[in-house]
Amino acid sequence: MNQRLQKLSSWLQHQNLDAAFVTSTPNVFYISNFHCEPHERLLGIFAFPEHEPILVCPKMEEGQARSAGWGYEIIGYSDTDNPWALIAASLQKRGVQGEYIAIEKEHLNVERYENIRALFPQASFTAAEAKLHELRMLKDEKELAILRQAAYMADLAIEIGVSQIAEGKTELDVLASIEYELKKQGIQKMSFDTMVLTGANSALPHGTPGTNRIKHGDFVLFDLGVIIDGYCSDITRTVAFGAVTEEQKRIYNTVLAGQLQAVQACKPGTPLDAIDRAARSLIEENGFGQYFPHRLGHGLGISVHEYPSVTDANTTPLQAGMVFTIEPGIYVPGVGGVRIEDDVYITETGVELLTKYPKELQIIK
Amino acid sequence: MNQRLQKLSSWLQHQNLDAAFVTSTPNVFYISNFHCEPHERLLGIFAFPEHEPILVCPKMEEGQARSAGWGYEIIGYSDTDNPWALIAASLQKRGVQGEYIAIEKEHLNVERYENIRALFPQASFTAAEAKLHELRMLKDEKELAILRQAAYMADLAIEIGVSQIAEGKTELDVLASIEYELKKQGIQKMSFDTMVLTGANSALPHGTPGTNRIKHGDFVLFDLGVIIDGYCSDITRTVAFGAVTEEQKRIYNTVLAGQLQAVQACKPGTPLDAIDRAARSLIEENGFGQYFPHRLGHGLGISVHEYPSVTDANTTPLQAGMVFTIEPGIYVPGVGGVRIEDDVYITETGVELLTKYPKELQIIK
Repeated sequence: MNQRLQKLSSWLQHQNLDAAFVTSTPNVFYISNFHCEPHERLLGIFAFPEHEPILVCPKMEEGQARSAGWGYEIIGYSDTDNPWALIAASLQKRGVQGEYIAIEKEHLNVERYENIRALFPQASFTAAEAKLHELRMLKDEKELAILRQAAYMADLAIEIGVSQIAEGKTELDVLASIEYELKKQGIQKMSFDTMVLTGANSALPHGTPGTNRIKHGDFVLFDLGVIIDGYCSDITRTVAFGAVTEEQKRIYNTVLAGQLQAVQACKPGTPLDAIDRAARSLIEENGFGQYFPHRLGHGLGISVHEYPSVTDANTTPLQAGMVFTIEPGIYVPGVGGVRIEDDVYITETGVELLTKYPKELQIIK
Repeated sequence: MNQRLQKLSSWLQHQNLDAAFVTSTPNVFYISNFHCEPHERLLGIFAFPEHEPILVCPKMEEGQARSAGWGYEIIGYSDTDNPWALIAASLQKRGVQGEYIAIEKEHLNVERYENIRALFPQASFTAAEAKLHELRMLKDEKELAILRQAAYMADLAIEIGVSQIAEGKTELDVLASIEYELKKQGIQKMSFDTMVLTGANSALPHGTPGTNRIKHGDFVLFDLGVIIDGYCSDITRTVAFGAVTEEQKRIYNTVLAGQLQAVQACKPGTPLDAIDRAARSLIEENGFGQYFPHRLGHGLGISVHEYPSVTDANTTPLQAGMVFTIEPGIYVPGVGGVRIEDDVYITETGVELLTKYPKELQIIK
């Protein structure tokens, strides 16, 4: 068994759990190296303290599971099979019974929960998330190398985007050029829908790019990331076009100062809420507190949002190996929005910035 | 209340249900016109037989909900609020109690289910899906108009893709050109990850585009769709580059004949399994049955996969207003794969093809 499966099995043994059913695409990938988007179909891995694990997946994905290195039982089902009947038969053959089962309570839906309860009628169900999050939260060297690459390509994407800015171009024009150039470089997938927002649209923390045109005096905000070998990057940069007012400059420099202060606060042992507050307090002191309505950041890895959550309520101490975003923002309706986001890796002694695109205010002429 | 909310409320009344909690992005959009991707955050609409509905969403999305036309209560929560406590307070204020609650069993996760059970400790929970699927399955004129537009852009995307085929280009080169041109035309989002697959890769029903290069004698398979105003299209075309062998021609023409036979079989009253079998039997008769491992198609609308499912086990009769895909395929390892997919709309008397790109075997020189 690979190391991650072994850790999961040891945990089951240690907790006196009889089985885990891991069902989310990222967690299945994490423990098996098999990446599968099953849409509405069932995907999952049964792990046990002692038995070998079982993968459940659509029959047409079996070949890809084998190529990804899965060497154990696969229950492959066609669109007209009932996968639960196949699972029941397999568990019965192995003599598996369960009193205590771990499931992904934040992923497993109620319909499937009812099916699993029918498989294990006497069982109590416990959440597998905490353990899976804990395993995934601390990145190993191999993961870090991939995350560095993904961040490097995110920097490049910002560079491409900034080079495309011109009077009258639409948000989608610029966005199309970024993704075109990335695909030419072999990037198959973005971490999430790329955002290029300008003018009033930049003042929406989750605005949607459209046919707004870049105008003199507007901010242009880029928020994007790429996926490389199953790992995500996530960067935000904001630049100005043509000129900025004093107010825009003050907004920008407040976000930047908050962002730098949060990055500087990062080292093992410091609690996450202190990182959030390092940025938030500076933004509040400058009178923009009400315009910073979201958490400071989020963990990053196989998922673009994973553990840890960087909020002013999360007192978990930083640990070497964590990777997360630091992305304060100020969004002033009618004036525009600024957000600056880096991906950071916590080292034994401090912090490494994975994203490196410059952060000083740029006025594109 | 809008018509869709009214239908949901009437259904609750008719079924003696006290409330529904609708939580998936597509269903929330369907009944509210508010499109929100909440990631790991909670999104939902409480609908009642008599009370006005309540929307639960992240605080930073409240403005977009209002712009989308939501005129009722909103429970907006920040990242550090506990939304369940806010929901409990709101329900208590209204005096809502529940014995029978409808939830999306295929969407709601176990963690949230446990929270809802805590809100309604005496309640029984029933699946809301059947009703929501039924409502969404039959498209109205406004939805059809958008789906026609989305299909038109999918046709255009195939045209662009085919025009880009050339010896030595990679799958990602061609894919990048397609998405670039679509974004320039204002398309913000594809329905799913665009597929351009060539050579051996086209023989994987769910292959991933990469740096495989187009070679003389290979198939090039495109599977893609766009989202317009929240509605998806989904088209597949396969063309040959340079030349084809007799075997490739026989594969192509078998898929095409099966596809045409399935389209011709479409009219109100015919059961869905007969549509699947119309294509499948022809493919089997030609000896390729084992190489057609998936269902014939799937419903299409706000989701790229929705009801009805077109399988050989679904005996639901076709109804005017249904929109679904018809997409037989033959995937022969070592030779290549062919899939041909249209989006169809069931009319009062037969069928309208929404996608119109030609289907005869094209050999690109």
